[in-house]
Amino acid sequence: MFNFEPSKMNLMSYRSHHCGELRISDVGQKVVLSGWVQKGRDLGGMTFIDLRDRYGITQLVFNMDTDESLCKIARSLGREFVITASGEVTERSNKNPDRPTGEIEINVEDLTVVNPSKTPPFTIEEETDGGEELRMKYRYLDIRRDTIQKKLIFRSKLALETRKYLDSKNFIEVETPFLIKSTPEGARDFVVPSRMNKGEFYALPQSPQTFKQLLMVSGMERYFQIVKCFRDEDLRADRQPEFTQIDCEMAFVDREEVLDTFESLTKHLFRSTLNIELGDFPRLDYNQAIEKYGSDKPDLRFDMPIHNLNQTVKDSGFVVFDSAEYVGGICVPGVADEYSNKDLKKLTEWVQRPQIGAKGLVYAKFQTDGSIKSSVGKFFNDDQLLEWLDRAEGSKGDLLLILAGDKDNSLKQLGALRLEMGKRLGYLDSTEFKPLWVLDFPLLEWDEDTQRFYAMHHPFTAPAAEDIYKMDSPDREVLKNLKANAYDLVINGAEIGGGSIRIHDRKLQARNFKLLGFTAEEAEEQFGFLMGAFEYGAPPHGGIAFGFDRLCAVMNHQNSIRDFIAFPKNNMGRDLMINAPAPIDKEQLKDLGLDLKD
Amino acid sequence: MFNFEPSKMNLMSYRSHHCGELRISDVGQKVVLSGWVQKGRDLGGMTFIDLRDRYGITQLVFNMDTDESLCKIARSLGREFVITASGEVTERSNKNPDRPTGEIEINVEDLTVVNPSKTPPFTIEEETDGGEELRMKYRYLDIRRDTIQKKLIFRSKLALETRKYLDSKNFIEVETPFLIKSTPEGARDFVVPSRMNKGEFYALPQSPQTFKQLLMVSGMERYFQIVKCFRDEDLRADRQPEFTQIDCEMAFVDREEVLDTFESLTKHLFRSTLNIELGDFPRLDYNQAIEKYGSDKPDLRFDMPIHNLNQTVKDSGFVVFDSAEYVGGICVPGVADEYSNKDLKKLTEWVQRPQIGAKGLVYAKFQTDGSIKSSVGKFFNDDQLLEWLDRAEGSKGDLLLILAGDKDNSLKQLGALRLEMGKRLGYLDSTEFKPLWVLDFPLLEWDEDTQRFYAMHHPFTAPAAEDIYKMDSPDREVLKNLKANAYDLVINGAEIGGGSIRIHDRKLQARNFKLLGFTAEEAEEQFGFLMGAFEYGAPPHGGIAFGFDRLCAVMNHQNSIRDFIAFPKNNMGRDLMINAPAPIDKEQLKDLGLDLKD
Repeated sequence: MFNFEPSKMNLMSYRSHHCGELRISDVGQKVVLSGWVQKGRDLGGMTFIDLRDRYGITQLVFNMDTDESLCKIARSLGREFVITASGEVTERSNKNPDRPTGEIEINVEDLTVVNPSKTPPFTIEEETDGGEELRMKYRYLDIRRDTIQKKLIFRSKLALETRKYLDSKNFIEVETPFLIKSTPEGARDFVVPSRMNKGEFYALPQSPQTFKQLLMVSGMERYFQIVKCFRDEDLRADRQPEFTQIDCEMAFVDREEVLDTFESLTKHLFRSTLNIELGDFPRLDYNQAIEKYGSDKPDLRFDMPIHNLNQTVKDSGFVVFDSAEYVGGICVPGVADEYSNKDLKKLTEWVQRPQIGAKGLVYAKFQTDGSIKSSVGKFFNDDQLLEWLDRAEGSKGDLLLILAGDKDNSLKQLGALRLEMGKRLGYLDSTEFKPLWVLDFPLLEWDEDTQRFYAMHHPFTAPAAEDIYKMDSPDREVLKNLKANAYDLVINGAEIGGGSIRIHDRKLQARNFKLLGFTAEEAEEQFGFLMGAFEYGAPPHGGIAFGFDRLCAVMNHQNSIRDFIAFPKNNMGRDLMINAPAPIDKEQLKDLGLDLKD
Repeated sequence: MFNFEPSKMNLMSYRSHHCGELRISDVGQKVVLSGWVQKGRDLGGMTFIDLRDRYGITQLVFNMDTDESLCKIARSLGREFVITASGEVTERSNKNPDRPTGEIEINVEDLTVVNPSKTPPFTIEEETDGGEELRMKYRYLDIRRDTIQKKLIFRSKLALETRKYLDSKNFIEVETPFLIKSTPEGARDFVVPSRMNKGEFYALPQSPQTFKQLLMVSGMERYFQIVKCFRDEDLRADRQPEFTQIDCEMAFVDREEVLDTFESLTKHLFRSTLNIELGDFPRLDYNQAIEKYGSDKPDLRFDMPIHNLNQTVKDSGFVVFDSAEYVGGICVPGVADEYSNKDLKKLTEWVQRPQIGAKGLVYAKFQTDGSIKSSVGKFFNDDQLLEWLDRAEGSKGDLLLILAGDKDNSLKQLGALRLEMGKRLGYLDSTEFKPLWVLDFPLLEWDEDTQRFYAMHHPFTAPAAEDIYKMDSPDREVLKNLKANAYDLVINGAEIGGGSIRIHDRKLQARNFKLLGFTAEEAEEQFGFLMGAFEYGAPPHGGIAFGFDRLCAVMNHQNSIRDFIAFPKNNMGRDLMINAPAPIDKEQLKDLGLDLKD
């Protein structure tokens, strides 16, 4: 029997089983399967078709001898045709141990072509031949690939586990509004013109920060939300204009309780989705992290720490070191012999690229034969170089790499060099997970261009209790060193979450706004509703937000978040599939009270 | 001991227990509680304070004899002050059986005022004295009221139960994009100007309709999402510019499987959150619903159906009936004696209001003493009137109310009258739940103003299989009667969900766009990506979307959705708390390539 007319399909069921379900114990059953033609092959008088759905692949078999016309139709099916087939489950003579359904096949008796398919622009297989642009344009076909589908299913599971866990801890998911008010602070808002209030605009939230704090004032006590946030900024390779956060807030807590709660959440997520037990998370101060790893999000899958060599290398007459604010180095284990002068020249060029920005690279190779080769051999003798090695906790066979310059930049450059060397040594291929908390971030960041302070986290972050009295200091250096009660969760070098204990006192909030260069009027105009709320019995509170897209990627050892997003945008913020953004018509602009500027 | 300095709080924990937790079995324990001062009262040498948090209320007690200074501080606390108190759990002599913690109190030894409070602009109690405007402006205080907090907690629970259930049925939650493309079809889009693509706009989704269909083409098979949607239209009293849907789609299904799946979901939600077992949902055709209840979302908490009286009342020389396309009536049970002429005059005025729009009302009172009084007694004798009563399945004591006119409007008016009479009789106070499916909606709606058809559901709804061949008819009446494979879920007169089997065939979709007045170019321009997707093996699919805000309200027998939304907007689309929308500065407009029109 062969049907083509879609309307006839109403008379039958599309499936009795999924394509990943049937086993040897089902032999003899009459079944109906639906799905996509993965591929077909003809073998003498037989035709085999791999039928695919979300759950797996099952082999269909057609026999020229039994039903020639049906077999011919089977031979005419192209890849990605949608079909419904019914027949009997039989044991395969030629079993496929790589497939859960590999012991059986379906002897097809009825076949319906539900929908034919043009030849897809790229192959629908784990590894595809489609380029990025093509895959994005035909994203609906790209998602049909098992590798993308699995990532979206993982994301769904991770979100559900997050919700179940937080619910079990008495957190309430509250939806905060998407149409809110634009604030000049922070990265740029997407705005939404209001038709009913012409000349006025909503903004899309960069985060629900003020709303979750208001929910604490409301006595909700434990809030969370898995929520889309929006940021209209120039997109780096792996950022998206819309992204998802696990946003959380708790009242009547101190830092310990917040860290404890979300460390437990993180452990639960790894356990429930990956069956991985994470140990207790180590903690680093922000200053420690910078001094030791040149980064506030160090990758601890390998150590290779930065060593401050100031005490060791200075005052020997080498002007590059003597004139530098800071000299530091990393000891790359076991590569002294293999790094040629040419390799080291290339590495020097690497650190000199504008993205890194070092002036030069000093090296010392402590070869296994005992000889030492150094780019500064003219200025330092072997004993001195061995002293460096000792200071850097290295040993024979190691390569010592040294940068000098102002402290902040040198540490950043050494952090980048450390990561590069870790990558070359294969340390980043590790499938381990190394979470850590980074604590005690600075409260403020000085911006040279605008000659003012910005909030390192956001303006609602509480200063460390012991630093509050310093907030009125006229000394910029004192202010630069103010500590915030802020923390980040880092896994494998990626910032997964960040949060803080918040200010809950109107006066303290006002002092903080003043530090950030707000006049009292500006503070009132923009955040008056929050400061007003603090006057009506605001409880102490704090929270955290996880970057959900990034968490999905890191948990799967993927560098890019894109394939964990069903319909991502490209670097120009464009959806290539639906072709958005796009012009709108004049009538609509007029309704909104807007004109396009030429 | 008394502390005031917030920074000292870091040294102690805010609570060992919640305010709803302690029982007689805890007597003797030392505990720490934090929360808000609900109220205080002084009784001789004692001061009692009701301390409130999200979990309950616990009584604190202070004794002038034991610690005079502490007791004086307790007496100075105002309502909504945030405090932390520690002390011993003791048995109350004067127990309060209405409160779970009513058998104990805390003998306070230490007290910290964490944050004082100004006097709130309205009382923080179950019933408040605050008006709508004031409550919205201070929404963070409004939410502190138990009645609002419970509604938000119910919403959170309902969302989680939805997710758990759909996950158990193999549905995957996929986040679809918020920054999409504007389409001229349907209600109005909110648009978002793109800074990176000047002169171009994104739109916020009115629903993820096309994306969920693309996910079916992608082979996700079972998709859901609890998702914000946006509609920029003039707001009726109980609409919001942003609202939440439970959005679902399934592949390889027919209508039965969709109805079955989401009837089961609905039953699960009632069972898991309200402990209510719903029986199987009755079904009505759209036409039946209109003819019997004058509405496509009939409230079945009471019957009082509409009866077509055409056969019964016509051709008796009464011109109002004889000239009418339709005469119909409802029989209001047991009120004949109590409705005076004055009452009936008022009821006539009620149906004549522009919102209802009837020309007049004909009545017949079948009084319990056997006498009959009718507004058309001059034209019809008692036998005739008794025949009407018989036709309307009424009996002695009933009041028969009759409207005449064109059929569509008369049925609508009778539907409104039926609801009004049900309300007067107290039928709408019933705490019962009466769900039903309304099936077989028309595919198209004719619009007299624009002289064109619009899609009754949306342009992607499949016509009933048996009506497909009629789609090319030139006869407008034939087209008006085309049935769609569409369905609504109605509970207690509210539309809770609506969906359809979709078109999955490019040619059929093109024919439907043509019916809706799209040129081939317009269809391609706006929905080319979807029609293109249909050419690559699109499976048959269908789905449903539930209005989540409305579902929350209906499940709690509330008429308004507002208190189930944490931060709702008013009828002008304005958030009174944060004062949005608001003007943005010139610099930002310039960046977006926009000018305000004067």
